[in-house]
Amino acid sequence: MSPDSSRPAGGPPPGPPPAEPSGRLLAIPLPPLPDVRPGDDLAALIADALRAGVGADPELAILPGDVLVVTQKVVSKAEGRVVDLRTVEPRPDAVSFAERWNRDPRQVEVVLRESARVVRMERGVIVSRTRHGYVCANAGVDASNTDGAELVTLLPEDPDASARRIRARLAELLGVDVAVVVADSFGRPWRWGITDVALGVAGFAPLADFRGLTDTTGRELHATVVAVADEICAAAELASGKTSRRPVVLVRGAPLPFGDGSVVGDVVMSEAFDLFA
Amino acid sequence: MSPDSSRPAGGPPPGPPPAEPSGRLLAIPLPPLPDVRPGDDLAALIADALRAGVGADPELAILPGDVLVVTQKVVSKAEGRVVDLRTVEPRPDAVSFAERWNRDPRQVEVVLRESARVVRMERGVIVSRTRHGYVCANAGVDASNTDGAELVTLLPEDPDASARRIRARLAELLGVDVAVVVADSFGRPWRWGITDVALGVAGFAPLADFRGLTDTTGRELHATVVAVADEICAAAELASGKTSRRPVVLVRGAPLPFGDGSVVGDVVMSEAFDLFA
Repeated sequence: MSPDSSRPAGGPPPGPPPAEPSGRLLAIPLPPLPDVRPGDDLAALIADALRAGVGADPELAILPGDVLVVTQKVVSKAEGRVVDLRTVEPRPDAVSFAERWNRDPRQVEVVLRESARVVRMERGVIVSRTRHGYVCANAGVDASNTDGAELVTLLPEDPDASARRIRARLAELLGVDVAVVVADSFGRPWRWGITDVALGVAGFAPLADFRGLTDTTGRELHATVVAVADEICAAAELASGKTSRRPVVLVRGAPLPFGDGSVVGDVVMSEAFDLFA
Repeated sequence: MSPDSSRPAGGPPPGPPPAEPSGRLLAIPLPPLPDVRPGDDLAALIADALRAGVGADPELAILPGDVLVVTQKVVSKAEGRVVDLRTVEPRPDAVSFAERWNRDPRQVEVVLRESARVVRMERGVIVSRTRHGYVCANAGVDASNTDGAELVTLLPEDPDASARRIRARLAELLGVDVAVVVADSFGRPWRWGITDVALGVAGFAPLADFRGLTDTTGRELHATVVAVADEICAAAELASGKTSRRPVVLVRGAPLPFGDGSVVGDVVMSEAFDLFA
């Protein structure tokens, strides 16, 4: 494998070693959830969907090591992280950028409010670093799949905490221990197309640290840290698709690194290490 | 979902629409392959592994729509894309960079030879654009898992062609039509950890184009193109892991966009669109 393209000398702090691959990865979407509204008990909706789904597909019965991947949008809606654009007064910069690139100036305003620092703002694209530290398009502000044209969702305030809350509540409701990931679709530099990545995790560490381990010929693997949580989100996206109303996917057989890591604490690279600010 | 963070106005050229998600994604590694040597018939080794595996796991019997994900390293080895570092004379720049950052100057020399353009060369990291157009660490030059400390692998000359050749030969040997992806592990800016992505594909288009489609509320999905081939590679990586000698993974149930696309032609962003050169 190639070393991490964005790894400075030293790389990230040490993390847990990889878990043994199970040899069989499975991703199955849960049945559709109802429309999620602010204040909804999202974990209860997920528990209902799991109970409904297990009748049709026995593989939806939770097993140890299973992960539930929940898309950011329903988490944001349940947490009330929704803005009605009719309440938004855009600043002059937002108006001029929006006019030039045929965008909604109120949505641009919300993006700027959600941005701790704008990384690129050109050709109609705003890439910024959010307060959490994610670098992404439009600070994660998103209009699609909300109820009506005037609403946008913001990222959860603390997606790792969101994942932990959903996990704890599922344990209460179902009596099972399941890991949880909150996922969103991010673009990447240099390659067209979005892939799903993790915003928050609960129940495992999001990175597997292979550094210091040897490969099949006894050679030390050089500087390899695998973004397990992000790969889990990608697998979940393939199983559910974008147009269906299936925001939760069960992923089974992923090699979960032991521990209680966090995406913001472990995966998000601080600006000090960022070669592409 | 968030729009593509690196999408300039207009985005990529139109591509095939998404396929219907199957509702069940499965990834299973094939049994281990023998050591791959230059000139080996890699497809024949894969066919043997498939035949051997299907006895133990009937799910390894190929079905329509299945994808075989093959790691770059065995493709490069079979194609003789291997360099013995003892034959490499490093240029002065390679020597000084290697000395400063405790790297092998001959490996740095090979990286520079494989780079069409260096994007970043600092803190011990070389991120460059290869002749194919991939932007990655060390131009994909890789020392681990080769036979002995003095060999490095280069990326295949044309990974899309590699995938097409493997696919055609598997059709000959097995009488089945299976899609093929050549995968490698790339780092990303802004986030720690590597994820597997596609270097080449055969038998499907690597991007699914949702633009112009409507979401569940009838709203048009704005500017969303999903990197299906890259997500397939991520799922495969989770199933096989890094330390095992299982360089081929069967992925079933992925929504393959119809057509004969290519990673270099469709996924790789040209420098004209690149906001992070």
